[in-house]
Amino acid sequence: MYFSARGHEVTVLDNFAKRGLELQHGITPMEEIAPLHKRVERWEAETGHKIAFEASDLLEHRALYRLLERSQPEAIIHYAEQPSAPYSMLGLNSAVYTQHNNVVGNLNLLFAMKAHCPDAHLIKLGTMGEYGTPNIDIEEGYITIEHNGRTDTLPFPKQPGSFYHLSKVHDSHNIMFACRIWGLRATDLNQGVVYGVQTDETKIHPELCTSFHYDDLFGTVLNRFCVQAVTNYPLTVYGKGGQTRGFLNILDTLRCVELSLQNPADSGEFRVFNQFTEQFSVLELAELVRDAAADHGIKAEIDFLANPRIELEEHYYNAKHTKLLELGLEPHLLSKVLVEQLISHIQRFSDSIDPKVMIPRARWRQD
Amino acid sequence: MYFSARGHEVTVLDNFAKRGLELQHGITPMEEIAPLHKRVERWEAETGHKIAFEASDLLEHRALYRLLERSQPEAIIHYAEQPSAPYSMLGLNSAVYTQHNNVVGNLNLLFAMKAHCPDAHLIKLGTMGEYGTPNIDIEEGYITIEHNGRTDTLPFPKQPGSFYHLSKVHDSHNIMFACRIWGLRATDLNQGVVYGVQTDETKIHPELCTSFHYDDLFGTVLNRFCVQAVTNYPLTVYGKGGQTRGFLNILDTLRCVELSLQNPADSGEFRVFNQFTEQFSVLELAELVRDAAADHGIKAEIDFLANPRIELEEHYYNAKHTKLLELGLEPHLLSKVLVEQLISHIQRFSDSIDPKVMIPRARWRQD
Repeated sequence: MYFSARGHEVTVLDNFAKRGLELQHGITPMEEIAPLHKRVERWEAETGHKIAFEASDLLEHRALYRLLERSQPEAIIHYAEQPSAPYSMLGLNSAVYTQHNNVVGNLNLLFAMKAHCPDAHLIKLGTMGEYGTPNIDIEEGYITIEHNGRTDTLPFPKQPGSFYHLSKVHDSHNIMFACRIWGLRATDLNQGVVYGVQTDETKIHPELCTSFHYDDLFGTVLNRFCVQAVTNYPLTVYGKGGQTRGFLNILDTLRCVELSLQNPADSGEFRVFNQFTEQFSVLELAELVRDAAADHGIKAEIDFLANPRIELEEHYYNAKHTKLLELGLEPHLLSKVLVEQLISHIQRFSDSIDPKVMIPRARWRQD
Repeated sequence: MYFSARGHEVTVLDNFAKRGLELQHGITPMEEIAPLHKRVERWEAETGHKIAFEASDLLEHRALYRLLERSQPEAIIHYAEQPSAPYSMLGLNSAVYTQHNNVVGNLNLLFAMKAHCPDAHLIKLGTMGEYGTPNIDIEEGYITIEHNGRTDTLPFPKQPGSFYHLSKVHDSHNIMFACRIWGLRATDLNQGVVYGVQTDETKIHPELCTSFHYDDLFGTVLNRFCVQAVTNYPLTVYGKGGQTRGFLNILDTLRCVELSLQNPADSGEFRVFNQFTEQFSVLELAELVRDAAADHGIKAEIDFLANPRIELEEHYYNAKHTKLLELGLEPHLLSKVLVEQLISHIQRFSDSIDPKVMIPRARWRQD
């Protein structure tokens, strides 16, 4: 919708895998998501813009080759991956599904691009979670290392924290190689944790709303805290809450894709942008939501749960994120006012919220 | 056979995938390889040692779980991967097959170990090709980086050069994670290029011979040069021949596994050994084979082919390989005498050699 509204000719490929996973795990987004057919009709009725779509799958490489041959895209925005770390940690099947779906789907896309649109710009959704929490500054994709009197600029060492994050590291290596040997051009957007719910496009009509998750599998932390505040549940911090990560507003996510699109990578270049705007610890976010909720007349408490993940709860974290700013990103920063707006929005749907799905099911140690 | 001869109780799991690939691509090893049933019978008849085996597949996770539950191994030596870089570069199907088979098979193994033998020592065949050719010294798995005044020891950055080598990098990341979160213990043997044909065990009977490949898919460079010398074909150097790699004698490969077995990794430890004994450039090897052939009365010429791979032909290369030496490895070093012995051995089979299969089929750029 963001790109269609700006005059781009957009084709969506969707296999509806996430809706399937939602059904399997008893999860629904906070707002009902209309079928894609309906959404596309609604978008055209409201804006006059057509969005083409194809119900297909990156694992169906023949259909993918035909689509790229026919549509000759200038850019491919690749969001088509299983996106949940906790889902990938449920057990063997979900780990294998995640790595197979993500890695093979991405490989098929690289080969299809080589065959039919080798000059197209691949904009791939990565994750800041590829880096883990090293004890040195995190650079954007590469680091210059001086070692025993010699120097090279090499891929930044990765320490991903789930089978999902590992799948993204595998993708990054595969894409880097495809750029090097075939001259493809790619931008890997190592995205931080997204918060927020509405964009200018989703506001046009309820049938255009985005998928807002507060559950243990697809939910993100700030969104979940706001839902917990609204439904009078304690804000559940895992462990000590010192886990620090990069965050960004949903409004900035598509702007980052747009900036990448407007400033494509060179042929043969594998470019990495760290796509977040601010760092927070989990506890800082819980305190912010508690304070914003108080201003809104809600008394929220903070609860410290045993951490289901294996991760450092006290660590150094300083990740660079200047490249998108240099291209013109003007961040929407987090504030108490913004959290209050989010809380207000969630209150409209409080009757449909299922608090059970906020209890973490996936345990990293599984014993 | 190496471990069975030394009193270990050995169970082999084999899906015969490589024999299938040989049939598909018109390749046969230089010496005929008996079916595994026959080899196991022959081994017992000659030595009195039984080797158990199971025709199965790491992709069949249920069978794998049952095998580990029943056999309760102390160590698992994981060689069960598609091992050819050129095969992985033939096209989409071979690239996807390689990454799916290797990555998912290895994931299944990690989960099965966690379920049934979490204290077993995983000894995994990696490859020196995971590192690529960085302009700094290559360390054994990890590198200590000082950056902006802070220091951490991180996984050595990887720049693999084929979809096969990429699959090994993916495996390494997955295994490192499994060690960290589940406390598994693993040794990743980043093996160099192997040369040679006989071991003490294969010499016992012709039915126990090893699979000697000189073809474009499964052959390795020194072996191929010797076959070319014997069959009066020029030694085919790709590009300038400045590509420098680590090499080791087949006699040292299993000794390295044995040293790893005798000195297991700690619980939770992901240990990396660079398993090679000497560095050579491709051209140095061609010249060595030419000179050894001359001493043997064969006039061999060196031919420079257009390089089918994308790789640097002039580069820095200095890879550390002290950890196995510290554990007691006594390398069998390469020499003209050794090459002459190899040439003599190959001459016994010269009638069955098919020179056509030495022409490279896989092209990295594929255009």
